[in-house]
Amino acid sequence: MLGIVYITAGNMKNASQIARELVSKRLAACVNMFPVSSVYRWKEEIEEDNEIAMFVKTDSSRFEEITKLVKSLHTYEMPAIEFWGIEGEKEYLDWVHVNSSGEETKK
Amino acid sequence: MLGIVYITAGNMKNASQIARELVSKRLAACVNMFPVSSVYRWKEEIEEDNEIAMFVKTDSSRFEEITKLVKSLHTYEMPAIEFWGIEGEKEYLDWVHVNSSGEETKK
Amino acid sequence: MLGIVYITAGNMKNASQIARELVSKRLAACVNMFPVSSVYRWKEEIEEDNEIAMFVKTDSSRFEEITKLVKSLHTYEMPAIEFWGIEGEKEYLDWVHVNSSGEETKK
Repeated sequence: MLGIVYITAGNMKNASQIARELVSKRLAACVNMFPVSSVYRWKEEIEEDNEIAMFVKTDSSRFEEITKLVKSLHTYEMPAIEFWGIEGEKEYLDWVHVNSSGEETKK
Repeated sequence: MLGIVYITAGNMKNASQIARELVSKRLAACVNMFPVSSVYRWKEEIEEDNEIAMFVKTDSSRFEEITKLVKSLHTYEMPAIEFWGIEGEKEYLDWVHVNSSGEETKK
Repeated sequence: MLGIVYITAGNMKNASQIARELVSKRLAACVNMFPVSSVYRWKEEIEEDNEIAMFVKTDSSRFEEITKLVKSLHTYEMPAIEFWGIEGEKEYLDWVHVNSSGEETKK
């Protein structure tokens, strides 16, 4: 199934690094990134931070590989890595499928 | 089923044009647009671009009409047009349903 | 089921107020907020407005409580309150589950 992996990163430098690795390793066809203001609970305190949200367009069969790569590059102990399935326009979905086949190519 | 159609456009001018057409033709009740930085693979190269992401709140039965309209107005050869279903607060969902009935009204 | 509640607010002040209440009352583990430009139909007119979109990471069993709290604090007559389910990385999902258990804690 095709879908979106939703990740939040601490800054754009880390987000872009992760995004480029995912795309060059064909773990994702495309990544859309945008700044967010976050409110969350961490060790019993309410925290506020600026983060970068990431929409990673990929195939659900890549999820384990994506999780491994994100954890290896991410600056957090426990990054947010979520997934939901999508349908969509056929030609575009075929492009996502082909470009998230998992075979690495030269950067 | 009600849901979100997720589209990315090349710039806000094109995104707003598409959004206004979708809403005035009652193909969508509301469109939320925001700037994103994108990393993607295109013809074997890793590309980076600024785009506009669009959350189109609509009914899944409008998807073919939305795809046709987006393709007729979009500046890309192959725009990203994705869909996922939503549930939600009843009064709001009724409003989305009524306003994505597909009957055009005067602009 | 864990998921994302998607809300739009009229400004960041209202969005942050809602976000902090949701997190401190353990109705959500985390809220990501970002500015959007909206086009929508309201009383037969096409309107354009700046809003704040909110991704509320929570458990679907909290939805009624979240709807009640949002309606009590929101500046709109009929706020957009939508939900879609997610899967994801186990450790992160466990954290969302624990922090959206519904038992209030001191702010």
